[in-house]
Amino acid sequence: MRDGGVDALLLMTEPEVRYFTGFLTPFWQSPTRPWFVVVPREGKPIAVIPEIGAVCMQNTWIDDIRTWPSPRPDDEGVSLLVDLFRTLLPTGQGDVGVPMGPETSLRMPLNDFERLRDAFAPARVVDAGAIIRTLRMVKSEAEIAKIRHICTIAADVFEALPQHLHIGMTEVEIFRTFKTAMLNAGADDTAYLVGGAGPGGYGDIISPPSTRPTQAGDVLILDTGAVFDGYFCDFDRNFAFGDVDDAVKRAHTTVYAATEAGLAAARPGTTCAELFHAMNAVLEAGGAMGNAVGRLGHGLGMQLTEWPSNAAHDMTVLAPGMVLTLEPGMTFTDGKVMVHEENIIIRDGAPELLSRRAPADMPIII
Amino acid sequence: MRDGGVDALLLMTEPEVRYFTGFLTPFWQSPTRPWFVVVPREGKPIAVIPEIGAVCMQNTWIDDIRTWPSPRPDDEGVSLLVDLFRTLLPTGQGDVGVPMGPETSLRMPLNDFERLRDAFAPARVVDAGAIIRTLRMVKSEAEIAKIRHICTIAADVFEALPQHLHIGMTEVEIFRTFKTAMLNAGADDTAYLVGGAGPGGYGDIISPPSTRPTQAGDVLILDTGAVFDGYFCDFDRNFAFGDVDDAVKRAHTTVYAATEAGLAAARPGTTCAELFHAMNAVLEAGGAMGNAVGRLGHGLGMQLTEWPSNAAHDMTVLAPGMVLTLEPGMTFTDGKVMVHEENIIIRDGAPELLSRRAPADMPIII
Repeated sequence: MRDGGVDALLLMTEPEVRYFTGFLTPFWQSPTRPWFVVVPREGKPIAVIPEIGAVCMQNTWIDDIRTWPSPRPDDEGVSLLVDLFRTLLPTGQGDVGVPMGPETSLRMPLNDFERLRDAFAPARVVDAGAIIRTLRMVKSEAEIAKIRHICTIAADVFEALPQHLHIGMTEVEIFRTFKTAMLNAGADDTAYLVGGAGPGGYGDIISPPSTRPTQAGDVLILDTGAVFDGYFCDFDRNFAFGDVDDAVKRAHTTVYAATEAGLAAARPGTTCAELFHAMNAVLEAGGAMGNAVGRLGHGLGMQLTEWPSNAAHDMTVLAPGMVLTLEPGMTFTDGKVMVHEENIIIRDGAPELLSRRAPADMPIII
Repeated sequence: MRDGGVDALLLMTEPEVRYFTGFLTPFWQSPTRPWFVVVPREGKPIAVIPEIGAVCMQNTWIDDIRTWPSPRPDDEGVSLLVDLFRTLLPTGQGDVGVPMGPETSLRMPLNDFERLRDAFAPARVVDAGAIIRTLRMVKSEAEIAKIRHICTIAADVFEALPQHLHIGMTEVEIFRTFKTAMLNAGADDTAYLVGGAGPGGYGDIISPPSTRPTQAGDVLILDTGAVFDGYFCDFDRNFAFGDVDDAVKRAHTTVYAATEAGLAAARPGTTCAELFHAMNAVLEAGGAMGNAVGRLGHGLGMQLTEWPSNAAHDMTVLAPGMVLTLEPGMTFTDGKVMVHEENIIIRDGAPELLSRRAPADMPIII
């Protein structure tokens, strides 16, 4: 914060509040109430939160918890924050850091934010995105242990899944089977599950499941972001229903080989752009006709996707402790895509695989 | 929009995008990319979205879909929006509506929003919260059918749950049992499940489950927001583990009676404040020592909690088609709370119950 010229951070999103406090609750599903954590340059963070969260916050390491009876639309924490910053910035001067850059959002009413900014003046509100990004990109071993745990659960469930699938099941049934198996295996939740099946491949990887029965010749992708203790895995697997086109098999071989290239390139000191190019060269050699995903993997942790991006524009230098997905994807024929994904930790030397490596050939469902 | 003096709406949150387009995907778990829908005064909405969503958006009623290859931090949709608004506001004058008031947030980087606001000038960006709130508070019968379906599923699972619980199970095990039963009963997801058990009552209703084994004398609350086709239920049930204190039983009787008072008061023309006072009078007569939830129910639909609030400050007038929770809660002894909840639709005359009415006495787990 000193290097970044920030006197105090004002944070409000679920991962930011949790990162600095340990406050874990599904209550964020409710958009009604804003929640704030203020991180001063010295001393512990201060929670400024709705009264409904006081007991849950008392179970964290935070001592200074200030609450208001929310919902109170006229003053949703605004006056508490104004009072707090008067104490933190006694001269009235200073820079209050709020993340404002890529991949951030403002989880409070814009009207209230502007009231705060006016009330803070002459102190300024400045972009603190880089501070948060730099901190969160490198994971502690405690964070890695949680990600490893949920990756192992998902790998087990993916490996056993062919026994529970058969041609004719609908996507809805397949999704339900997967989610139930994840719960039984110890996942807290399967917050993210997308995918779909189609003849000769699928065209879209973000739609909810359909009620169309699968048929011989279909290829199914399941891409999951399941959660354990607030940390995500994010990887996918492809399945062949009966005998599938050679074009699909070749595409799977290509994305598998691109992942191998990614595993070979993912070393401390490499940039994300270099990692992208290592994988993309294999995709292009394999006949890729583009990739609507826009990148070949990303950071992973408290959120399904985090900084950085494995993309040509991202000059982030890989460092030990970064958790990434390698996600090579390609359009291989008109309207059909193939996406593969693994989760890794950057280590000194070769990366550590968090997801167990997918089989080189798609499992066959009969 | 004409009445509100807004020339076009610029929307970006998951429910706003879905409300106007039908675009349904769990991909919102990824915070990386912003998504936009622009609603002009005349003509159909226009989607301005990352390329990864194009196929999924083509399955909606939207014709005009503009995409960019995202992530692209330098220009995440900004130039596409600027071009679009040049066409929509050819004179450069006009008012662009963005929700900025209570219960809203800005799901895009603040830096990009300020770039947009500057680029739109002399057109102004104004608060369109009231337009969205007014539209979304009254549900269509198609929306109600989805909410009724998930409420019925949750009611069935709650009613059967005592057969699957026993004293000694941990909260983690109970949560897993509930979520698995919800999947088997046809829920798409149990996006929200909170609660907890404690001797003589629980103290907190938003924490994740613990690994403490339940004991005789515990009271357990489970509060769930499960989802079907993008619509939520939101109600809870209380369970007595063996023989529980009379104070807990009295508190349950009080919140049950307060719900009855709410059912009797919930009529078109009544204000939310009046509905609050009808329930609160019963709670106070029953010895309530306050309520950290801050209100006694709320709107329900595409989100777990929506406008309005059953609170003394909310002068919203109830109208047929509004879907509400009645959620009387009280602190009944030091550190112990009791919360009850049902889901209703405001109809001409008596409300329609969406959740099947809870038993007047807590089911007993042995």
